[in-house]
Amino acid sequence: MTALAGRLGIRHPLILAPMAGGPSTPALAAAVSDAGGLGSYGAAYLPPPKLREVIREIRAATARPFAINLFADEGVAADPAVLQAAQAAVAKYRAELGLGPPAFAPGTVTLAESFAVLLEEKVPVFSFTFGIPPREMLEACRRAGIFTLGTATSVAEARALEDAGVDAVCAQGAEAGGHRGTFDRDADPPLVGTMALVPQIASAVRVPVVAAGGIMDGRGVAAALALGAQAASLGTAFLLCPEAGTSPPYRAALRRARDESTVVTRAFSGRAARGLANRFTREMSGAPLAPYPAQNALTRELRAAAARAGDSGLLALWAGQAAPLARELAAGELVGQIMRETDTVLSSLR
Amino acid sequence: MTALAGRLGIRHPLILAPMAGGPSTPALAAAVSDAGGLGSYGAAYLPPPKLREVIREIRAATARPFAINLFADEGVAADPAVLQAAQAAVAKYRAELGLGPPAFAPGTVTLAESFAVLLEEKVPVFSFTFGIPPREMLEACRRAGIFTLGTATSVAEARALEDAGVDAVCAQGAEAGGHRGTFDRDADPPLVGTMALVPQIASAVRVPVVAAGGIMDGRGVAAALALGAQAASLGTAFLLCPEAGTSPPYRAALRRARDESTVVTRAFSGRAARGLANRFTREMSGAPLAPYPAQNALTRELRAAAARAGDSGLLALWAGQAAPLARELAAGELVGQIMRETDTVLSSLR
Repeated sequence: MTALAGRLGIRHPLILAPMAGGPSTPALAAAVSDAGGLGSYGAAYLPPPKLREVIREIRAATARPFAINLFADEGVAADPAVLQAAQAAVAKYRAELGLGPPAFAPGTVTLAESFAVLLEEKVPVFSFTFGIPPREMLEACRRAGIFTLGTATSVAEARALEDAGVDAVCAQGAEAGGHRGTFDRDADPPLVGTMALVPQIASAVRVPVVAAGGIMDGRGVAAALALGAQAASLGTAFLLCPEAGTSPPYRAALRRARDESTVVTRAFSGRAARGLANRFTREMSGAPLAPYPAQNALTRELRAAAARAGDSGLLALWAGQAAPLARELAAGELVGQIMRETDTVLSSLR
Repeated sequence: MTALAGRLGIRHPLILAPMAGGPSTPALAAAVSDAGGLGSYGAAYLPPPKLREVIREIRAATARPFAINLFADEGVAADPAVLQAAQAAVAKYRAELGLGPPAFAPGTVTLAESFAVLLEEKVPVFSFTFGIPPREMLEACRRAGIFTLGTATSVAEARALEDAGVDAVCAQGAEAGGHRGTFDRDADPPLVGTMALVPQIASAVRVPVVAAGGIMDGRGVAAALALGAQAASLGTAFLLCPEAGTSPPYRAALRRARDESTVVTRAFSGRAARGLANRFTREMSGAPLAPYPAQNALTRELRAAAARAGDSGLLALWAGQAAPLARELAAGELVGQIMRETDTVLSSLR
């Protein structure tokens, strides 16, 4: 039991990574929490009433702590010419899926609106990515007893999070699936591997560190603890659980994944993220893109239609570099299995 | 003590990564071996008489086992037009350093010549990268009792090495400094992080696995063992040791390194390698390059002159992503320190 696990009130040093836009479900978060880990729900895209519903669903399913994850950066407005070019670039895929001209609806959910729900519902843990929320939000969390967990992809970001007063830092290594948590929305994101990033961040900050990126089983959790993390964050490991909202074509693609299958792309959301290479990441490489969140809004209908059509070539297949190690187990069983493996690994190294 | 350490006859599961072209010295390899690890010498560029001398120097300095590393791929001949364009691209740097027109001398050392020396001298361990040596070389090693260690940057490469009959596989994660060991000389090298690569390779092959990439201290060695490796390979960690051949401007650049300082570049050798970003990697990005080994020959004089001039902007500053954790200790002391840390980390996790 690490000090961080004690503060969070969880039995196992295992955190379910938030996976907005599909895989995150209340059932998955609740199952991980109920099994003694910390379940998370990626709520960045949810309208506030739906967010409140999700929080209540998780609470109805488990009495244990859980985290709600939001994006600390709301992005920028797209220049009309850029937006037009980006719309043109995805038009042919829409046509293939029988969709009409882009019904472009930019995201209208603000961080402030979403955060207000978190505060009213007094969620146990507020985790975030893409930067640092405004000071008043972090202060409100302290007053309300909400634990804060920020994401860093570099030592500099970890130091900035600590300076802002977060309770813990998640060190997101380059192996991680999904969005890079990098603060700077325009720069190429640093792609520092977990093995290199976690000890450097653990040496640089005094707050507890959570390791993320490439962790799939007890070997990875034990390694994360050895590197100086007080917990491991796993996302891809849970994508094939029945409780996950992973669509059937997404699951099928994951079952075919190899270690070399992923790429970092901005094509789906305008923000850099790691997923399985597919037709869309290949063909859109070099194509005009709108910035986040416009690009995300622009591909939303397309992704939903592709999922319905069973077409994995036009889906965002977020996955980490160890996706082939994902297992098809109920989430609670998987947590138990991973923690037993962790104990076995650590015992064997005595 | 792992089974691999037992077979190698070393006390500690720690291997010094080979660092051809400067940092490797007989003194560094011997110091690591003498302290109970496995010292390595990167001998890819050495003329055979010099290689024999190096092996004898190591043997004179230690009675313990050591490894000699060679490149299994000799590269391809450069097209004359490509070569001319590549020469033109580096001409201005030569002029700045007072060098005349390129005295282009392609590498003339063949793998067969170098290997013959290894066999005659019966080195304890033959390690290699960039592919798989011809079958008859591996057979000769088996007959001579020379342990073979091949480098893999993907699961597919690890399987190919096992199928070829190597004794152990080094899983080189994306964090690693220096050349990517990737077999395919033309493709973008897979950049799978150590945390993701090591457990996948450990699950895929039956031969012992060595973990490389981002490992700098006892936290990293303990993590490597947790991931299923039987030893850890460290290179960057030893770059600041007095025994290393790291030039003064290279050392100064390492002392300024941050986690985000490295890039993967082909500019120095024609083969992809990770090092600290500098003027040369930035300005040569997108410039015409010759393939390996011509590009390497083309920049050799330039690099030597830059080192003499104290100009780190035109040097190959090979380094991994955890370079800021490098320590300025005698190599033997560093081995002892890292192994004490490893024990402390593992004890704390019981």
